[in-house]
Amino acid sequence: MKLYNAPAPNPRKVRIFLAEKGIEIPRVDLDLQAGEARTPEFLAKNSLGLTPVLELDDGTTLSESVAICRYLDELHPDPPLFGTTPLERAQVAMWNRRVELELMDTVGHIAQHTFEFFATRRIQVPAFAEAEREMTARKLAWLDGEFADGRPFAAGDTFTMADITGMCAAMVIGLLEIPVSAELKHVNGWFDRLRARPSWDA
Amino acid sequence: MKLYNAPAPNPRKVRIFLAEKGIEIPRVDLDLQAGEARTPEFLAKNSLGLTPVLELDDGTTLSESVAICRYLDELHPDPPLFGTTPLERAQVAMWNRRVELELMDTVGHIAQHTFEFFATRRIQVPAFAEAEREMTARKLAWLDGEFADGRPFAAGDTFTMADITGMCAAMVIGLLEIPVSAELKHVNGWFDRLRARPSWDA
Repeated sequence: MKLYNAPAPNPRKVRIFLAEKGIEIPRVDLDLQAGEARTPEFLAKNSLGLTPVLELDDGTTLSESVAICRYLDELHPDPPLFGTTPLERAQVAMWNRRVELELMDTVGHIAQHTFEFFATRRIQVPAFAEAEREMTARKLAWLDGEFADGRPFAAGDTFTMADITGMCAAMVIGLLEIPVSAELKHVNGWFDRLRARPSWDA
Repeated sequence: MKLYNAPAPNPRKVRIFLAEKGIEIPRVDLDLQAGEARTPEFLAKNSLGLTPVLELDDGTTLSESVAICRYLDELHPDPPLFGTTPLERAQVAMWNRRVELELMDTVGHIAQHTFEFFATRRIQVPAFAEAEREMTARKLAWLDGEFADGRPFAAGDTFTMADITGMCAAMVIGLLEIPVSAELKHVNGWFDRLRARPSWDA
C-alpha cells in the first residue's frame, strides 16, 4: 500500500487519521507547484489530478480523503473513528458532512477563488471568495450554538472523522487569518482541543 | 420513525433510496416556501433548517441525506447500496463524493446563487453561478472520460448511492436546462439508465 501525499488539507486529513490510528503507510510526496499531480502517470491514478490517493498492492487506486479513511478504518478498527453502532456511524457521517459543508467548503472556496495556484483548475470569482469570508462568520456562530450543549467533539464525547475535518478547517482558517470571535467560546474551545492533539502536526 | 420531507434534491435522494430498498417510512411533507423548515419546532430538529430529517422513535434526529441513507442501509441491508466489502464501500464513498463535488455541488451552486428562494440563506454572487454553469460542461466532459470503460454505474457494475446522487444532479441539470452535449455518449447513457429506473419518480 502506498499513499500519494502533498502539503494540502485533504492529504492532511489522511495523515491525521493515520496518526490517530497509529498506522504507518509508505508515502510518495508530490510537489504540487511543480505539477507532479498533473503528470500522465498520476492522472492515471486519479483523473482529477488531486491528492490524496491510496494505491493498493494490486494497483487499485482510491481517491477522496474520507473514502480512503473509511477503507483504512475497516482494516484497522481501533480506535474507531467512524462510530461503532449504526446510529453512531450515521451521526459521524452527519457531522463530518456538516463540518465539511458549513465550514471546510466555505473557507476552502476563499482559497480556491483567490490563490493563483487554483487559477487553472476553476473559473475564479473573487466576489464569491469575499461572500464566503462573510459567510464564515455566520457559520462559526451557528456551530457555536451547536456546541453549547458542552460536548467536547463534533459528533459527541468521542473524537471522530468529523473532528479531523474540523482540524483541516481550523488550519485553513489560520492560514487565511480569518478572525474567530472570542465570544464564540464553544467553537474556540473545540479548536483548542483539536490543536492540542499530537496528530495536529501530522 | 418519521421522515421530514420536501420537494427538493436532498430529500429526493432519501425518497429514491427508500424506493430502491422497498421501504416505507411515514413522511411529514414541509412547505419550504411557507417557511415550514424555519419554525422553532423544526429548527429544534435540524438547526440548519434543512430537509431531509429522519426522526427516530426516541426523538433522536438525523440530518444530511447520505448519513440518513447510511443509517437505513444498516437497518435494511438488501439490496446493498453502499457496497459489500471494505474496498467496495470505499469505492462507493469515493464515487458518491466525486458525483457530489464535481457535479451536484456545481449545478447546485447555480441554483443557490440565482434563485430568489436562497437569498436569505446565503450571499448570492450571480457571477459565481455563471462560472459554475461553464464549469458544468468541463465536469461533464471529465465524467464522460471516466465512464469510457463501459461500466453502467458510477462505482462499477452495480447501482449504488453514488448513482442516487447522480439522479439528483441529473434532475437539477434538467431543471436548469443545462445542455448536455450529445457527444458525451457515456454520460448520456448513464443519465438514460438512471431516468429509466422506477425510483426516478420517487
